[in-house]
Amino acid sequence: MKKNILIIPGDGIGQEVTTWGKQVLEAIATKYNHEFVFEEAIMGHTAIEATGNPLPEETLEKAKASDAILFGAIGHAKYDNDPSAKVRPEQGLLKIRKELGLYANLRPILLFDELLDASSLKPEVLRGTDILFFRELTGDVYFGEKKRNEDNTFASDLMNYHRYEVERIARKAYEAARTRGKKLCSVDKANVLETSRLWREVVQELAKEYSDVETEHMFIDNAAMQLVKNPKKFDVVLTANLFGDILTDEASQIAGSMGMLASASIGDSTGFFEPIHGSAHDIAGQNKANPLASILSAALLLDIAFGLQEEAKAVTTAVADTLKAGWRTGDIANAETAADKILGTNEMGAKVLE
Amino acid sequence: MKKNILIIPGDGIGQEVTTWGKQVLEAIATKYNHEFVFEEAIMGHTAIEATGNPLPEETLEKAKASDAILFGAIGHAKYDNDPSAKVRPEQGLLKIRKELGLYANLRPILLFDELLDASSLKPEVLRGTDILFFRELTGDVYFGEKKRNEDNTFASDLMNYHRYEVERIARKAYEAARTRGKKLCSVDKANVLETSRLWREVVQELAKEYSDVETEHMFIDNAAMQLVKNPKKFDVVLTANLFGDILTDEASQIAGSMGMLASASIGDSTGFFEPIHGSAHDIAGQNKANPLASILSAALLLDIAFGLQEEAKAVTTAVADTLKAGWRTGDIANAETAADKILGTNEMGAKVLE
Ligand SMILES: CC(C)[C@H](C(=O)O)[C@@H](O)C(=O)O
Ligand SMILES: CC(C)[C@H](C(=O)O)[C@@H](O)C(=O)O
Repeated sequence: MKKNILIIPGDGIGQEVTTWGKQVLEAIATKYNHEFVFEEAIMGHTAIEATGNPLPEETLEKAKASDAILFGAIGHAKYDNDPSAKVRPEQGLLKIRKELGLYANLRPILLFDELLDASSLKPEVLRGTDILFFRELTGDVYFGEKKRNEDNTFASDLMNYHRYEVERIARKAYEAARTRGKKLCSVDKANVLETSRLWREVVQELAKEYSDVETEHMFIDNAAMQLVKNPKKFDVVLTANLFGDILTDEASQIAGSMGMLASASIGDSTGFFEPIHGSAHDIAGQNKANPLASILSAALLLDIAFGLQEEAKAVTTAVADTLKAGWRTGDIANAETAADKILGTNEMGAKVLE
Repeated sequence: MKKNILIIPGDGIGQEVTTWGKQVLEAIATKYNHEFVFEEAIMGHTAIEATGNPLPEETLEKAKASDAILFGAIGHAKYDNDPSAKVRPEQGLLKIRKELGLYANLRPILLFDELLDASSLKPEVLRGTDILFFRELTGDVYFGEKKRNEDNTFASDLMNYHRYEVERIARKAYEAARTRGKKLCSVDKANVLETSRLWREVVQELAKEYSDVETEHMFIDNAAMQLVKNPKKFDVVLTANLFGDILTDEASQIAGSMGMLASASIGDSTGFFEPIHGSAHDIAGQNKANPLASILSAALLLDIAFGLQEEAKAVTTAVADTLKAGWRTGDIANAETAADKILGTNEMGAKVLE
C-alpha cells in the first residue's frame, strides 16, 4: 500500500512525541511492505514564530494533499497569560479541523490492565471499562460568533448547532455502537440549553432508526459525575464539542494518564490523528513526555485511515508488551511499588519499536 | 434571634429531604433559643401542576420577604424526554436565582473521614481534600438569548459575561481564599472562548489586588482532569456558571456522593440554600434519598445567612457523629464491608436529630 502521511509536530512536547509516532509508522511500513511517504509541516506557536500565521497556507495545502495526518500538540503559556493576544496557536488547530471538515472526534478510552494501579480511581471501579467517545468537532461555541465590546466590559460567544451537524456525528456514533456494546449515551444540557434540546430531538429520532442500540440521554453535570463513579456503565458516548472536550480529558484518568490517550478526527476527507494531551510546555524538551499517546495515534491512523487492522493491532500489542515488561514513563509510574522501570520519552519509544 | 425561613421542597426527593433540613432547623431553634418562623412555597414541576407556572408570583414574593430560603430539588423526567416542552421546572430555579440576584453559588466539598471508602477514588488521593467552589450563578450561557429557527434546523444559546459579573464573584472568592488556604484557581477556556478571555483578564487584575493569595488559571478540560487526579491541590476554585455546574457535580464523588453536598447561593439579598443533587425521580417516594445534603444545607444557612457559627457547627458535628456511629444511606454505604448500618431517609434524619 502506498500512502502519503503528513506529520505536524506542533508545539512543546508535540515535537518530541510525534517523532516516535512517525518511527513506529516507518517500522510498520518496513515490516508489512508498505510505502509511506512522509512530509512535515508547521502549526501553532511554532508556525506563528516562523510565519506569523498559526496555520500557514502551505500546511493546509499539504494537509489536503495527504492521505492521513499525524499531529502532536499545540499551545504556549505565552498566549494563555495574555488573554488579549489576537493571534493564538489554537486558532491553527481549530481552523484545520474546520477546513478539513473533521467533524467527528473519536476518543477511545483504552485501558491497559498493567496501568490499573496508575489511576487515582480504584482498580475495581476501572476494571472492564471500555468507552468510545464521539465528540462533535466543528460546531458549538467553538466556532460561533465571538464579540467583545469596545470598552472591554462585555464579551460573548455564540453556542450553536445545525440539525445536520448533530445528525452526521450521531450516525457515526450509532454505527460504532452497533459494532460494540450496542449502548449509546448522548450527553447534553437539555434542561437549560436550546442547542441541547435540538441535539436531544435529533438523537431521539435516530434512536428509533437504530432501535437495536440502547439509547440513554444524560445531562453533562451528571455525566461528569457518573464517569468517575461508575465508568463501566458507558459504551459509546456521544456529545457536543465543548462537553466532549471536558469529558474526555476527565476520562483520561481512567486510562491512568493523558499520556496514554489517542484520538482520531474524521469527516469528509483526510483523517487527523493526535494524542489528546496538550503541548505541556512545563516538561517540554526534557525527554519526560509519554510517547505512547502518539504511538497509539499512529495505530488509530493505520486502522481508521488505511483500514490496516493487523498493522494497527501490532502497534497496540507492542505498547501492551512494553507495559507488561514493566516499562513506564513518569506519568504512568506507580509511586508506591518502586518496581516500575522508569524511562524517558526516547527510551520508551525505542522499547516499543523493539 | 428571630428569623423568617422559607421552605421550598420542590420536586421528587426534594420533598423528602427538605423535611429533615427543616426539622434540624427547628431543633436548633429550640436548643439555642431562637425563633424561626417557617413558611412553605411551591416551585418546579409541582408548581407547574398546581398553577401552570414553575415559579408562581406568590413563591417569589414569599422568597423576597424571607430572611433565608431552604430549597430541595427541581426537575421531572417528563420534560427531559420532551425537548420541545415550552414550560419547564428548571425555569423556576433559574428565575428565582436571577430575581433574587443570587450570583454566587458556594459549594464546599466537605470530606468526612468516615466516607473515605465510599468514593470511587482511592482514599490516599482523597485524604486532606478541602475545596470551596465559587460558581457564578446568574450569567453565562444559562441566561443568554436562546434561538430556534422555524423549521427546527438550527438552535443557539448566547454565552456572555459582563465585566462586573465576573468581578463581583471573583472578589467573593478571593475574600474566602484569604480566610482559607490562600490559593485560588480560576477555571476557564480562554484558549477558545472570548467570555473566558474577559474572565481571565478580570481575574488577572484582581490577582494584583489580592497579592497575598496565590492565583492559578486553568483550562476547564484540564481542571476536570486534575480534580480526579489530584483533588488535594485545590483550595478555592472560581468558575463560570456552566463550568461550575459540571465541575461541582464531578467533585461530588470526592465527598463520596451527591447526597452529601450542600450549597449556598448568595448575592444582593436573601440567601438560598440547597443540596447540589437533583430531584432523582427514580428513587423518589421510596424513603431512600440521603437527607444529609439538606441537613448540611441547613447548617450553611445558619452559618452564612444568620451568622450562627456555633449552631452550624452543632449540625455538622451531629452529621459527623451519625456517620461515625456507622449509620449510612444506600448511596454512601460501602458494598464491601457489610459493617455499615443502612437506613432510609427518615431514619437517617431522625438519627441526626438525636
Ligand atoms: C487546544 C484546544 C483548542 C483543544 C480543544 O479544546 O479542542 C484541545 O483541548 C483538544 O481537546 O483538542
Ligand atoms: C437543575 C439545573 C438547572 C441546575 C443547573 O444546571 O444549574 C442544577 O444542575 C444545579 O446545579 O443547580
